Amino acid sequence: MSKIVFYTNPMSRGQIARWMLEEAGVDYNEQILAYGPAGMAGETYRKINPMAKVPAIVHDGRVVTEAAAIGLYLADVFADRRLGPTDDERAAYYRWVLFSAGPLEQAITSRAMGWDVPDDPQKQGTLGFGSYERTIDALEDHLNGRHYVCGDRFTMADCYVGSHIDWGIAFGTIPERAAFKTYQQRLRKREAYRKAKARDQALIEQMQKGG
Amino acid sequence: MSKIVFYTNPMSRGQIARWMLEEAGVDYNEQILAYGPAGMAGETYRKINPMAKVPAIVHDGRVVTEAAAIGLYLADVFADRRLGPTDDERAAYYRWVLFSAGPLEQAITSRAMGWDVPDDPQKQGTLGFGSYERTIDALEDHLNGRHYVCGDRFTMADCYVGSHIDWGIAFGTIPERAAFKTYQQRLRKREAYRKAKARDQALIEQMQKGG
Repeated sequence: MSKIVFYTNPMSRGQIARWMLEEAGVDYNEQILAYGPAGMAGETYRKINPMAKVPAIVHDGRVVTEAAAIGLYLADVFADRRLGPTDDERAAYYRWVLFSAGPLEQAITSRAMGWDVPDDPQKQGTLGFGSYERTIDALEDHLNGRHYVCGDRFTMADCYVGSHIDWGIAFGTIPERAAFKTYQQRLRKREAYRKAKARDQALIEQMQKGG
Repeated sequence: MSKIVFYTNPMSRGQIARWMLEEAGVDYNEQILAYGPAGMAGETYRKINPMAKVPAIVHDGRVVTEAAAIGLYLADVFADRRLGPTDDERAAYYRWVLFSAGPLEQAITSRAMGWDVPDDPQKQGTLGFGSYERTIDALEDHLNGRHYVCGDRFTMADCYVGSHIDWGIAFGTIPERAAFKTYQQRLRKREAYRKAKARDQALIEQMQKGG
């Protein structure tokens, strides 16, 4: 098995994938790509991801893009880390990862971009997320009284759903409700989370110094 | 193992989940829900899915929502149907399901709603999908020269990615490029696809007759 190559930028969703790699205990080669033609938008990287964005991982010649997909992939491949779901956890695991990748991401983006979501419930029905409020309420409802997405045990789903909440609270795109804050604090204590964030923070500081 | 209950409406993304259930060879109890307070938005169903939308399945008391999640779940649970990925297929399987649930869905919705996507590449970078054109090009690029999402073999990823393309061509939200049309025709020949669509079509006709 060849070493995983991890394409990222410290100021990107690559932070989510790095946390996932750390949870999976993977030893990886880091490739930092700048925004723009010299990096992500350059010809070389676009052969890996034609969307010209990070994160991406290359593992044994196979490419995985999309932060959520990277998590699902690592959980399966590094199965001994027990980050994938048990039979009891499987429904919640997929449900809330896909909920976050789809409706939650769309609800947050639409709101951040100032896009006009129709008030008409019939028209909202054609949108995957309905409305921002309903999406946030559904997520809060699930996390209320649960330690993790799948219940009592941390899984890879928490890296992805948790990153949405962690970033959302930091950027003000997700409200600071008690269920979200408690969950965020629980995740921030994890060693893999701290290790991943420390590395990205160091890279950001290095970039800001022009290093 | 209890029988799966399938909540759907024939004029919804429930069509995707029905196709998945048919591919998985699952015997299910169908519950047709109307739009609005008498159905999806009613109190009873909102306990199953607070997003007040279909599809959802309930299996042994566990709820799965989001069409893509239902597919990933069924592929794992009904593993003997070999709809999940082999080790060789896993990267493409997760990558393109998540690509479709995230960037593709968002690109199509934004365009259909007439939402204004910035021209500035830097601003597009904050969007998961960048631009509609780039998203469609990336998908075309992947399907070009491949029979299925994972290569030569049909997997559950094709139900989800394929449904996006099938609907997209039908509704004019995805352009009729050769790679998409060929792929669509290949999928439409499947017995499970035909069986699922026939059932939804019959239900639609029944509803239109006021039955």
